[in-house]
Amino acid sequence: MTIEEKVSQIIQGDLDGWMLNLGDPLDDTLTFNQTGLEEMVQLKGGSIWAGYEMPWDKFVFGVTVGQKYMMENTTLGIPALFQSEGVHGFTNNGTTFPSPIGLAASFDPALISQVAGVIATEAEGLGVSQIFAPVLDLSRELRWGRVEENYGEDHFLTGEIGNAYVTGLQSGRRRNASSTAIARMAATCKHFAAFGSPQSGINLAQVSGGERELRTEFLKPFNRACVNSLAIMTAYSSYDGIPAVSNSHLLTDILRNEWGYKYWVTTDAGSVDLLINFHQTCDTRECAAKAALENGIQGEMGGGTYTYLTLPDQIAAGTVDEKYLDQTVTAMLQTKFSLGLFEDPYPYSDYLSTLRTPASRDILHQVETENIVLLENRDNTLPISKSVKSIALIGPQADRVTFGDYVFFNASNNGITPLNGFKQYLSNISSSIQINFAEGCKLWSNDDSGFGEAVMAAQASDIAIVMVGTWSLDQTLLWTPGTNATTGEHVDLSDLVLVGAQLDLVQAVKAAGKPTVVVFVSGKPIAEPWIQANADAVVQQFYPGELGGLAIAEVLFGAVNPSGKLPVSFPQAVGTTPDFYNYLTRGKSFPNGSLLFGHQYVLNTPVPLWSFGHGLSYTTFEYTDLQISPSTISTTQNFNVIVTVHNTGPVDGKEVVQVYMTDLISSVVTANQQLVGFQKVDIPAGGSATVTIPVLSSQLAVWTLQNSWVVEPGVFTLKVGTSDQVFAQANLTVT
Amino acid sequence: MTIEEKVSQIIQGDLDGWMLNLGDPLDDTLTFNQTGLEEMVQLKGGSIWAGYEMPWDKFVFGVTVGQKYMMENTTLGIPALFQSEGVHGFTNNGTTFPSPIGLAASFDPALISQVAGVIATEAEGLGVSQIFAPVLDLSRELRWGRVEENYGEDHFLTGEIGNAYVTGLQSGRRRNASSTAIARMAATCKHFAAFGSPQSGINLAQVSGGERELRTEFLKPFNRACVNSLAIMTAYSSYDGIPAVSNSHLLTDILRNEWGYKYWVTTDAGSVDLLINFHQTCDTRECAAKAALENGIQGEMGGGTYTYLTLPDQIAAGTVDEKYLDQTVTAMLQTKFSLGLFEDPYPYSDYLSTLRTPASRDILHQVETENIVLLENRDNTLPISKSVKSIALIGPQADRVTFGDYVFFNASNNGITPLNGFKQYLSNISSSIQINFAEGCKLWSNDDSGFGEAVMAAQASDIAIVMVGTWSLDQTLLWTPGTNATTGEHVDLSDLVLVGAQLDLVQAVKAAGKPTVVVFVSGKPIAEPWIQANADAVVQQFYPGELGGLAIAEVLFGAVNPSGKLPVSFPQAVGTTPDFYNYLTRGKSFPNGSLLFGHQYVLNTPVPLWSFGHGLSYTTFEYTDLQISPSTISTTQNFNVIVTVHNTGPVDGKEVVQVYMTDLISSVVTANQQLVGFQKVDIPAGGSATVTIPVLSSQLAVWTLQNSWVVEPGVFTLKVGTSDQVFAQANLTVT
Repeated sequence: MTIEEKVSQIIQGDLDGWMLNLGDPLDDTLTFNQTGLEEMVQLKGGSIWAGYEMPWDKFVFGVTVGQKYMMENTTLGIPALFQSEGVHGFTNNGTTFPSPIGLAASFDPALISQVAGVIATEAEGLGVSQIFAPVLDLSRELRWGRVEENYGEDHFLTGEIGNAYVTGLQSGRRRNASSTAIARMAATCKHFAAFGSPQSGINLAQVSGGERELRTEFLKPFNRACVNSLAIMTAYSSYDGIPAVSNSHLLTDILRNEWGYKYWVTTDAGSVDLLINFHQTCDTRECAAKAALENGIQGEMGGGTYTYLTLPDQIAAGTVDEKYLDQTVTAMLQTKFSLGLFEDPYPYSDYLSTLRTPASRDILHQVETENIVLLENRDNTLPISKSVKSIALIGPQADRVTFGDYVFFNASNNGITPLNGFKQYLSNISSSIQINFAEGCKLWSNDDSGFGEAVMAAQASDIAIVMVGTWSLDQTLLWTPGTNATTGEHVDLSDLVLVGAQLDLVQAVKAAGKPTVVVFVSGKPIAEPWIQANADAVVQQFYPGELGGLAIAEVLFGAVNPSGKLPVSFPQAVGTTPDFYNYLTRGKSFPNGSLLFGHQYVLNTPVPLWSFGHGLSYTTFEYTDLQISPSTISTTQNFNVIVTVHNTGPVDGKEVVQVYMTDLISSVVTANQQLVGFQKVDIPAGGSATVTIPVLSSQLAVWTLQNSWVVEPGVFTLKVGTSDQVFAQANLTVT
Repeated sequence: MTIEEKVSQIIQGDLDGWMLNLGDPLDDTLTFNQTGLEEMVQLKGGSIWAGYEMPWDKFVFGVTVGQKYMMENTTLGIPALFQSEGVHGFTNNGTTFPSPIGLAASFDPALISQVAGVIATEAEGLGVSQIFAPVLDLSRELRWGRVEENYGEDHFLTGEIGNAYVTGLQSGRRRNASSTAIARMAATCKHFAAFGSPQSGINLAQVSGGERELRTEFLKPFNRACVNSLAIMTAYSSYDGIPAVSNSHLLTDILRNEWGYKYWVTTDAGSVDLLINFHQTCDTRECAAKAALENGIQGEMGGGTYTYLTLPDQIAAGTVDEKYLDQTVTAMLQTKFSLGLFEDPYPYSDYLSTLRTPASRDILHQVETENIVLLENRDNTLPISKSVKSIALIGPQADRVTFGDYVFFNASNNGITPLNGFKQYLSNISSSIQINFAEGCKLWSNDDSGFGEAVMAAQASDIAIVMVGTWSLDQTLLWTPGTNATTGEHVDLSDLVLVGAQLDLVQAVKAAGKPTVVVFVSGKPIAEPWIQANADAVVQQFYPGELGGLAIAEVLFGAVNPSGKLPVSFPQAVGTTPDFYNYLTRGKSFPNGSLLFGHQYVLNTPVPLWSFGHGLSYTTFEYTDLQISPSTISTTQNFNVIVTVHNTGPVDGKEVVQVYMTDLISSVVTANQQLVGFQKVDIPAGGSATVTIPVLSSQLAVWTLQNSWVVEPGVFTLKVGTSDQVFAQANLTVT
């Protein structure tokens, strides 16, 4: 390969180089620009951004002519990676699943593997070979707009769900690929690393932290889920003053040398240029290209000035060492070989048979119901009694589809609103229950002129359901300057309360005197203590997918018993954040009320409204017979936590058995508790199940003063419960 | 020395071992307990906590009998350090100065040296030899209760004020001490290190951060101010998972080996035990003692279980290396020799002549006025026109003395309230201006029943002054469980708004239609955007000292032209914090208003209400003739920033010339701007002054990837202005 050919392999190209009118999702022109294609392949031919919404036949046409040219008309015959998005659904009119935070709320890795499998299947048929997902950033900074793209605040849950996603996305083999192919699709773990805790919650802002926090928190999900992921994407931010995109400790020492990662690493869009105009560690494109390549063994994505185009001259001049280029190209080719792309990189002729199938719809339906979290349920307000004659369905989220970010333009049109979901559900069961709908207010307004209608609807009904929350927008709209949204990429908040008139609406409806259920539809925790204290029931629906409106009806009416658990704690207020459950040390806390002074905080408490792992059911569970087996281990010995769970309530239900570990004494400060295992089990009413949860001894390790992982002898407490409840507890001794 | 004698040197003893009734500040019993004294000296005789409030003659008696016994009746004849508090005044009925945050607002190191000199003088005569001050933590986490004890958010200002304090406190020599003594009082820089950014703002909570942030921010003030300080106190918290009290990197590698620090290091009260019951890195007192001693070369303060009493047995058993004990004792003796204590450790017989002197009162008076910050002054509302006939003085701070924490019980009784200050001032100038006083509301209540009286007072007056804010309490009271306070040690907030009915009071008074001046009396920034936008003038008085009530009158009436500057930025809301001016990188910001959606934040902005360095005057200043001299330097060359300041307004005034540096391109990410020099100058109306501010080349250094300080060639921008204003700007080139 010439140096130019190598460089072309590691700069991201774009389908718009040869396909026309990509800005118009409806355009179906099946022609291409030959000159544009040749130029693209010459300069940026290793990977091709294809994340455009367009008719599928046009997409297939574009991929086919591109691959065919590369395979048949270039000296080397190297096919390209065709890349698109898919954090919760393939973004060229594939099935939209719940936002990642909602996927995590299922606490069901097997199900998430199936979800990822659908995403891969839908993309694969069209000739896509790389999906920019999963996101493994931790939601320890809730103001950040991208909280909805993460799997919550906890590194273990994030690693397990992430691993399920990577496995589900990659497992299998492209048709016509030989056994040398180990995956059918390249997952892209992002954003490596420590991107999710930007200072002040502002997107891209610097992250403070040391080596121990890096190892103990931020890197763990990547280490768990991504060593076999065929791609990784680096972060925009800096960590302790070092931009991730040029962090050789992170990208070379740890990722390549310690972990032995051998696949493709890419920068994020425009992030190499950020070295010049944001981090200000370079004053030239040459410097930026050299810094990203030599420190990162990584390619350059578009969205910037293509600094890597300077590499041929720099190598010729001796300022950049060609060995880094070779290592990066090798990683790219390793990914392509692992995908079997050289054997057949083309779309499948029967791609329509794998898109939006009934089987995919079933998986979607299941995950929609599994991620709904029942937060409060006073006096068994839920499920809605079969004897009610009428319900009021109120609020700005009641007749609206709110997907999170990273869905295609107009994706929301594929979704069913809660109002329509209620109607459909009641129609399905031939119910005569009347729905009294009132919007009450807009999400984005202080206008309360609709309150009267809402209150009348409540008064006229047996029960009131008020649906409020945050909102994001379909891509394109989300990036329109001044756009109206409260979550999503680059949409950061300085407060976590309901915006506008929404809390007032809830209070007005509650004052009408009917049992009042509040449903939060949101991409992040909402901090409204009044609702926690006063609503008769509270339900959390993280941004759903296309069937969310039906699923919420099924849960509220009891057709589905809710089993979601919180992947992130709900703080009392933005001022009590960060409020994740696995903090290291902090002072004791004393809850109190209005103008009652206590410590600490004065006038508030760090105890969350609802803590990580919390989620109620329509049935009750009891735990017995906890065993740690063995209860004494060596430092390299794994063990099992075994416990029997009894469904002691009236209906069948699923429970997420959660195991938390506390290292009582250690050479460095460790988390007050840490999730180390969980399993979701389905138990019929009156039944029981014995659950065995394996824990690796490596999960007990601390990152020591000597900068290595060591399992230290001593006593560890193992709790079965949630982060704020104890159902059973026992000790493990490590000798 | 025997091992027991050595250990006794490094455990803090207590005056209560031989003096009686120390819980009663009025008790004046001049007797002592000989057995108690002997036991104390045997076990804990190197330093003696004497921070009790009691009649001075009793204090002198207690110190004298203690020192006399140690000098004359022990084998070694080693006098003790007698220790007390003094972050803003000697706490045994010495003069109370403004809280440290207020001292910093003066931006006047020479004046702060004088303040510290008074504190030393008052303590010295009574036989005190160590003061636990200054506090050099950075106020980058505003919810923390101890923000008022710090010198603000900036490491450079903190280092300069801290250095002034240490110098002022230590400079001189005890009477009868020979020239081997280099100081008359041991300052105690605290809390080493990185204590001021506890997670979630909760006192003692862990601090996240890496080596670069440690070096670039947290350690700088200590390095500037403390290498010659005769004592340092370690922090309670952990940094990246390592408790400060057992952090050998911090306490041995950096402090002892890199910096060559040779004096006394002490733990904070009870902090060694925290290794057992908080950080959980030890399960025994033996472990904790060993960890603190061997990693820290430090003594143990009281307030815990005296883990160091295990050291003789541990050394005998060989589990603790005696060399660390020897090093620690050496440091203790070094401090005592440097104080000349061996030559004469006794109180002075004429101690009354150095306590609360008229000269001290003058210094107090000056610093009270110098730290008041004029934040807003629309239409020259201030100073109060000489033509007014009446003023309304309103609000819960108007007839109240609010000192910060770390003052003695009932210290507030020595202060003058603003109401009395106004009366005194008007009486002094024989003015007939009438004061219409109304409290309006309590600080700690939502009760608005006093609003009517307040509004009537405003309506009856030509101008309304509303004094609101936060509050702390005198020691003893502050530590009463459930106590009513919003700032001070262990009193952390989850919000930065005015508590209770205070904002409503301001709005009600403003609605009365008279020019309305809001005075914040507080220990930290108050985040009330409505007041910034609507008050006719806003004045910040950080917790004052004894003459604060007079000083605020003098400033408001124009007898003194305000010259204080903010040592800490005032954020829009707790949700936009941290909001310090010298952040590394963050996204662009777009201010906007109610329900106007923008980025970022949606519905808010990280642009502070008032930014670090801000402070108005009753006159105006213009800057000309900026020179950087030389404008091109080598990497080891210092330079001067020279600028001419003109007082272009109607009255004499002081200006703080501030110089900020931006490193345009560097190998690691650096602050968007950094204060590197400042000087306060007094310029008559119509006059001008040319100011030369020296900057050291070392101030340009970055902590590199190779973990060393390097001045990197390139261009640096130097701005004269405040953190959000540019008065003049020029470039420096480093070659």
